[in-house]
Amino acid sequence: MNIKLFVIGNKFDKFSYEGIKEYEKRLSRYGKFKLEQFKNQEQLIKKLPSRTYKIIVTASKDVCSSAQLAEKIDILGTNGISDITFILGSSNIEFDETISITPMDVELGLLALVFTEQIYRSYRIIHNEPYHK
Amino acid sequence: MNIKLFVIGNKFDKFSYEGIKEYEKRLSRYGKFKLEQFKNQEQLIKKLPSRTYKIIVTASKDVCSSAQLAEKIDILGTNGISDITFILGSSNIEFDETISITPMDVELGLLALVFTEQIYRSYRIIHNEPYHK
Repeated sequence: MNIKLFVIGNKFDKFSYEGIKEYEKRLSRYGKFKLEQFKNQEQLIKKLPSRTYKIIVTASKDVCSSAQLAEKIDILGTNGISDITFILGSSNIEFDETISITPMDVELGLLALVFTEQIYRSYRIIHNEPYHK
Repeated sequence: MNIKLFVIGNKFDKFSYEGIKEYEKRLSRYGKFKLEQFKNQEQLIKKLPSRTYKIIVTASKDVCSSAQLAEKIDILGTNGISDITFILGSSNIEFDETISITPMDVELGLLALVFTEQIYRSYRIIHNEPYHK
């Protein structure tokens, strides 16, 4: 699976980048993952692969659990979808579905970090591997 | 307001400590905040101030927004409660109420970081201050 996290916003705190880098390293065992940051929506849309499955991350109260996110990624893979792009920081883009992990307003870099950790956790769940930390 | 975050678990990633430190710095303008980590529940209970208002952080789907958390802290203050302890990593302690910010299983250090950011955000909301990052 090829997973991308596209974020509109390009000033993260240093600790967010460090955390994302750490999870990217752990993720590399399981599949491709890439974080890309954009100044605005126009730039993001230009970089969207034409055949990627687009999931917008919202801050709705209809929240998803880690197991549900893992299941979603797993089912998409089973259905032949090998490229997913999660989009953070915009809700005004054509999408295939939306997802929420928290209704809280979280600083964008920190939210990107939590989301990266959740993708890593999803892979661990899909592979039936324990997750201690 | 005197806010404490008590966590059972004492091995966080370095980036989590760095993020928490950053928000502690920003928080210091508004009130007292302290993170304390414990090896187990027994140690935590020993350190609980006798008159603190205890809120257990759970991973329920009945999630709270940033505005709701701010309102909760504000109302507690108005009602004369000046000491709140949020407890992460245990649900087996006598408490005054529970709260959930996400149903996802999040690595404990990262969850403590997000929670610290939300306390900072609550203060900004209570003080009607903008929050850009």
